[in-house]
Amino acid sequence: MAQNVDEFLSVAIDAAKRAGEIIRGGFYKTKHVEHKGQVDLVTETDKACEDLIFNYLKEHFPSHKFIGEETTAAFGVTELTDEPTWIVDPLDGTTNFVHGFPFVCVSIGLTIGKVPKVGVVYNPIMDELFTGVDGKGAFLDGKPIKVSSQSVLVKSLLATEAGTKRDKETVDASTNRINSLLFKVRSLRMTGSCALNLCGIACGRLDLFYELGFGGPWDVAGGAVIVKEAGGVLFDPSGKEFDITSQRVAACNPLLKEAFIEALLQSE
Amino acid sequence: MAQNVDEFLSVAIDAAKRAGEIIRGGFYKTKHVEHKGQVDLVTETDKACEDLIFNYLKEHFPSHKFIGEETTAAFGVTELTDEPTWIVDPLDGTTNFVHGFPFVCVSIGLTIGKVPKVGVVYNPIMDELFTGVDGKGAFLDGKPIKVSSQSVLVKSLLATEAGTKRDKETVDASTNRINSLLFKVRSLRMTGSCALNLCGIACGRLDLFYELGFGGPWDVAGGAVIVKEAGGVLFDPSGKEFDITSQRVAACNPLLKEAFIEALLQSE
Repeated sequence: MAQNVDEFLSVAIDAAKRAGEIIRGGFYKTKHVEHKGQVDLVTETDKACEDLIFNYLKEHFPSHKFIGEETTAAFGVTELTDEPTWIVDPLDGTTNFVHGFPFVCVSIGLTIGKVPKVGVVYNPIMDELFTGVDGKGAFLDGKPIKVSSQSVLVKSLLATEAGTKRDKETVDASTNRINSLLFKVRSLRMTGSCALNLCGIACGRLDLFYELGFGGPWDVAGGAVIVKEAGGVLFDPSGKEFDITSQRVAACNPLLKEAFIEALLQSE
Repeated sequence: MAQNVDEFLSVAIDAAKRAGEIIRGGFYKTKHVEHKGQVDLVTETDKACEDLIFNYLKEHFPSHKFIGEETTAAFGVTELTDEPTWIVDPLDGTTNFVHGFPFVCVSIGLTIGKVPKVGVVYNPIMDELFTGVDGKGAFLDGKPIKVSSQSVLVKSLLATEAGTKRDKETVDASTNRINSLLFKVRSLRMTGSCALNLCGIACGRLDLFYELGFGGPWDVAGGAVIVKEAGGVLFDPSGKEFDITSQRVAACNPLLKEAFIEALLQSE
């Protein structure tokens, strides 16, 4: 099994880097096409990356299951079983992709028995490769990473996202939460990529991250194992256990967990 | 004069790159020292960069005036005259610097007759050099850049910052503004660097940016000419003329200006 996991990681890295080439190609083109062309370019890039990753993984691991953002969007099911299952976001940060804002990535996670075992998150624009394997550590470009050692909430850098929903209830809840938290942390960042925010926690660039209502398990499956292996903790913003299918996540180092949950509960 | 301006630019680029070396050196160290050490490292880096830039500019242009964040903080004056005046932020994004979040930069602007004439903004971590000279265009790493061609507010990517003030009035005003604007734009980014947000507008990665209550003219002096030369517009968030000493700025492409001002006014 140990050998298998190494192979899973190396194949996933290959797949992410190949998809990254496609993303890099499109990234510098979007601003030179009209809006309709931009939409097509996103859809084409997303689809081309997912097809590439799906086929590459299928070729190497024909018995494994596959959950992809595009596939699931098309078929409307997120069937996570105990089987080895690759959960893939071929292009996280599509708004950034369209605008040429450099926080975009490929996110690939492998769950076995519903537990994330392998994670690969690759930002082809900044050329940063985050990897993690259950029990074997987390790495940025091959060098070990760990979460920050910050233990004081008010000195912590928080990240979250505005999300895509724009109904009054969601936006009000979101800005009320931000209002409440701004009194308790050092500052706030919004990058537009859930997977890269998780990696930011893993390498200590960010101390606190939460997001509610993101797309699906593909946004967190890769980052989850990277955070854990970097010494971080993932949980539901309510303080309950993290559920990869719930579209809710919070992450930080263990020293901040209790104070972060308290601040999140008070922000509701 | 034309020759002079070229020399001003080339000396400013040299100064920014040399200061960038110092920032790069500190950037990867901060997380390996205790909190007190972090504070010292920021102060030392800030001071060392400003001394370097000040001395380098003084050596080349002994008659020019100088306004620096550190110097002004120490002496408490922002004396902007009609004389050629270098306005310098030796390290924009100090919170990012401490946390290792890659949006940090050196910002150098030259005003003559109080008008920004030369701007240099250098991010030594992402190795991106933004430059602009009055009447001669704006560039990223030597390649011409221009603002986005987006004309529809709801498709626009907005940037702002949470700032450093944490009194209730400021935080409430800030999150109320964000709440109002989120219904009108595509999404929101917060990077933690005012100068880099201006450069984001200049190269079209961002469509809209505003910030109220930042540190001083050193945050905007470099970026202002880069935005203008990239075809963008700067103005006060109220719609009035941009005042480099007011600690208030908004920037976008000319197509979005009217709608952006209206949205900003409605967000008050």
